[in-house]
Amino acid sequence: MLVSTKNKQEIKTESFQAAARVMQRCDALALASLNPDHIERTYLSTAHAQANKIVEGWIREAQMESWQDSVGNVWGRYTCKEKNAPALIIGSHLDSVVNAGKYDGILGVLLGIELGNFLARHEIDLPFHLDVVGFCDEEGVRFGATLLGSQALAGKWRPEWTELTDERGVSLAEAMIEFGLDPSKVIDAKRDPESICGFLEVHIEQGPLLEKRGLPVGVVTDIAGARRFNFVVEGKAGHSGTVPMFMRNDALLGASSCIQAVEEATKRFDVLATVGQVACEPGAVNVIPGNAHFSLDIRSAKDAVRDRALDWLVKKMRFECQRRGLTIDHIEIHSADAVACDSRWQRLLENAMHDSDIEVNSLASGAGHDAMAMTGYTPMGMLFVRCAEGISHHPAEAIKMEDAAAALEVITRAICEEAKVNLAH
Amino acid sequence: MLVSTKNKQEIKTESFQAAARVMQRCDALALASLNPDHIERTYLSTAHAQANKIVEGWIREAQMESWQDSVGNVWGRYTCKEKNAPALIIGSHLDSVVNAGKYDGILGVLLGIELGNFLARHEIDLPFHLDVVGFCDEEGVRFGATLLGSQALAGKWRPEWTELTDERGVSLAEAMIEFGLDPSKVIDAKRDPESICGFLEVHIEQGPLLEKRGLPVGVVTDIAGARRFNFVVEGKAGHSGTVPMFMRNDALLGASSCIQAVEEATKRFDVLATVGQVACEPGAVNVIPGNAHFSLDIRSAKDAVRDRALDWLVKKMRFECQRRGLTIDHIEIHSADAVACDSRWQRLLENAMHDSDIEVNSLASGAGHDAMAMTGYTPMGMLFVRCAEGISHHPAEAIKMEDAAAALEVITRAICEEAKVNLAH
Repeated sequence: MLVSTKNKQEIKTESFQAAARVMQRCDALALASLNPDHIERTYLSTAHAQANKIVEGWIREAQMESWQDSVGNVWGRYTCKEKNAPALIIGSHLDSVVNAGKYDGILGVLLGIELGNFLARHEIDLPFHLDVVGFCDEEGVRFGATLLGSQALAGKWRPEWTELTDERGVSLAEAMIEFGLDPSKVIDAKRDPESICGFLEVHIEQGPLLEKRGLPVGVVTDIAGARRFNFVVEGKAGHSGTVPMFMRNDALLGASSCIQAVEEATKRFDVLATVGQVACEPGAVNVIPGNAHFSLDIRSAKDAVRDRALDWLVKKMRFECQRRGLTIDHIEIHSADAVACDSRWQRLLENAMHDSDIEVNSLASGAGHDAMAMTGYTPMGMLFVRCAEGISHHPAEAIKMEDAAAALEVITRAICEEAKVNLAH
Repeated sequence: MLVSTKNKQEIKTESFQAAARVMQRCDALALASLNPDHIERTYLSTAHAQANKIVEGWIREAQMESWQDSVGNVWGRYTCKEKNAPALIIGSHLDSVVNAGKYDGILGVLLGIELGNFLARHEIDLPFHLDVVGFCDEEGVRFGATLLGSQALAGKWRPEWTELTDERGVSLAEAMIEFGLDPSKVIDAKRDPESICGFLEVHIEQGPLLEKRGLPVGVVTDIAGARRFNFVVEGKAGHSGTVPMFMRNDALLGASSCIQAVEEATKRFDVLATVGQVACEPGAVNVIPGNAHFSLDIRSAKDAVRDRALDWLVKKMRFECQRRGLTIDHIEIHSADAVACDSRWQRLLENAMHDSDIEVNSLASGAGHDAMAMTGYTPMGMLFVRCAEGISHHPAEAIKMEDAAAALEVITRAICEEAKVNLAH
C-alpha cells in the first residue's frame, strides 16, 4: 500500500505538530501528582487514576478505542480490519519516581498515541492492530517490585506480589480494591503471546550519550543487566591520637581502596560500576573506623563481562583488605541479566532513521525498562530520545520538541515498513 | 636526707601492696556512675560529687588534708614543714566519658594518693608540699569544652564557659549551683604559679606502644597537637546505569582518593591522620554520588611537621579532585598546638625508671591530657602506664597491677630525687 499524499516534508511537518502537542501533554500530565510541589505518581494512587483518565481521553481524541486492564495499565487500539490479526504494542509507563521529571515513561506513551493519530488521520491500513499501552508501574516506588504493569502483560505476575505493602502498611491487594480493581483478576492482564507480534518502546535516554553525539535519537541494542551488593569491611576501632599508623586496622582505609578498585575494574573490563552508599562506624572524628559499609551496582550489556569484572573486583578487594589486616564480606541484593533488543526491530529502526535523514546510531541502555519484561514473550525494540545533560528522575529532566518529532517520524516509518506501507523516503 | 630503712626490695613490695589497693579502688570508684550498667561520671553530676567524696576519704586515710576547690577539683596535701614552701602537684582527672573504662584519669589520682601515703608512712620530709589533685573535667563530655578543671587551676578559665549548656539545656552555671559551687567564684580555683613548682601526671597510655615494647611504663616527651577538619567534595549526581564512566564526576571516587592520600601523608611526614567520618549524597545504591563528606584528624608532636603534612595533603586532595572534575573545600573545626613535656621532668622520670630496673623509654602522647593545661603555668611531666591492647574509652580498658606498681615506684623515686631524698638504688 502506498500513502501517496505523503511527501517527506509533510511527514516532518506533521511530526512537529504532533510533537508540540506531546510537549504540552507532558506538561499537563505532570499535574496528575500526589504532591502539588513535584511530580509523584505511584501505582494505584489517585494520581495514577487521574493520569489513566486523562490518557484515555487523549487516546479517544486520536480516534482509538481505549480501556484499562485488570492490573491498571491503560490501553488504546488503532484497529485492523482483520479482527483476528495480531497486535503490535507500542508504549511505556505512566508512573513516576518521587520528585520526577515530566518525560520518563510518559513520552513513549504519548508518542504511541500520536502514531495512532497519524495512522487514523491518513486512514492507513495495517495488517495488525496497533495497541498503545501506558503501563501502570515501572519504577516500583510504592511496593518495591518493579515493572509490575509490563510483567502482568507478559504473564510474569507473581501471586505473592499482592501481599507487598507500601510504607504505610497498605497491601497491594488492598490498594487495588481501593483503586477499583479486583486482585483476584490481575492475571487477566496477561495477553496470549500468540496474539502479539512485537513490542516497541520509546524512552528518554536518561544518559548523556546522544547529547554528546549531537543526535536526537538512537537505537537501543541491549538493556544492561545489573547486580547489586552490600559490602562490609571489618577492622578495629581505636583512638585517632594514640594508635600508631602501622598498628591500625582502619576499615575505612580498606573501603576506600576497594572503591578505587571499583573504578579500576570499570577501566579494565569496560563495565559500569558505582558505589552510591558509604558509611563507617563508630563514625566519630577522633576514632579509627572499626568497620565500613558500601554498596556496589555493576552493569554491562554482556552478563559474562559483568561477572568477570565482578570476580576480579572481589578478589582485588579481598587482597586490599587482607594486606591491611581487615576482612571483607558481601551479600547480593539484586540481580538482573542483560536483555538484547530484537535484531529485526533494530534494523527497522535503523532504516527508519536513515529515511528520516538522521545519522544511524545505536547504544546500550544502562537503566532497566518495561521492554525487559518482554523477554521470552514477544520481540522487543527500543528507541532512545536525547535528554538534556542525561538528567532524569529529577525535575530538571528536559527534552527538545524537535527530538520528540524525530522520534515520532522514526517510529512512524518503522511501523509503516513493518506493515509494508510505503512512505516518502 | 637518707631514708635508711628502705632497701630496694622493700620499696618494690610496698609499691605492690599500694598497687593492689589502687586496683581495688579503681573497681570501687567505677560504681560512682550516673548509669548502673556502665561508667558515666560527668562534670557537676551526682556521680562527680560521689567520686569527690570517696576520694577525699581515701586522701584522709593517707594522712593528708583534703579539700574541694571552687571549680570542683578535689585536693589532698602532704604538708611540708616550711609553710611557705611551693607545692608540687601530682594528679589527673576523675571524670569519664560515657561507657568508660576504670583507669583513664582515675589511676593517676589514686597513684598520687599512694605516693602521699608512702611519704607519710615513712615520715619523709620534702622541701615542697605534695598536692594531689583529682580534676573535675578533662573529657568535656557534658559541656563540650575540655580540661575545665586543670584550666581553672592554671588561670585559663574563660568567663563564657559558665554559659555553656548540656544536652538538656542546663547551663554550666546552673549545674554549679546545683552541685553546691558558686559560679562567681570559679576563678578562685586558680593558684598563683609562684606557689607551684611543677606538675606530674600519671595516665594510662590509651595506645598500644608500651604493650608492643613489653614495658610497663614510658616517659612522655610531647603531647601532640591535633587539627580537625570537615571536607566536602562536590561532583554531579547521575544514574548509575546510564552515565558512562568517562562522563562522570563521582564525588565518592574523589573522596576515596583523598582518603588514600591521607594514608600517604602519614607515611611521607610521619604524622597520625585519621578519617573517622564519611558520607555521600544522595546515597542510593543506583545513583552516582553528587557530593561526599569526610572528616580529618591530623596530629603530630611537632606542629610544623603536622602543618607541612596538612599543606601537602590539601594540595594532593585538590589535585585528585580536579582531575575528576570535582571541587573540594574544607573547614577547620578544632586546632590545638603540641605541648612538649619539661625536659627536667623527663630526666627525673628516666633516672627513676633506671633505678627501678625498668628499661628507659619514651613516647609521645597522641591524646590530650590535663598536663596540656599547664603550658606557661608550671613545668609539667607525664608518665604513661601500659594498657591492654591500647584500648581506652571502653569498658574493656585494662591494666596490670604490676604496671601500676612500677609506675608508683617510678614516681616515688622521681619525687624523692627532686626532693633530694635518697632511696636505695
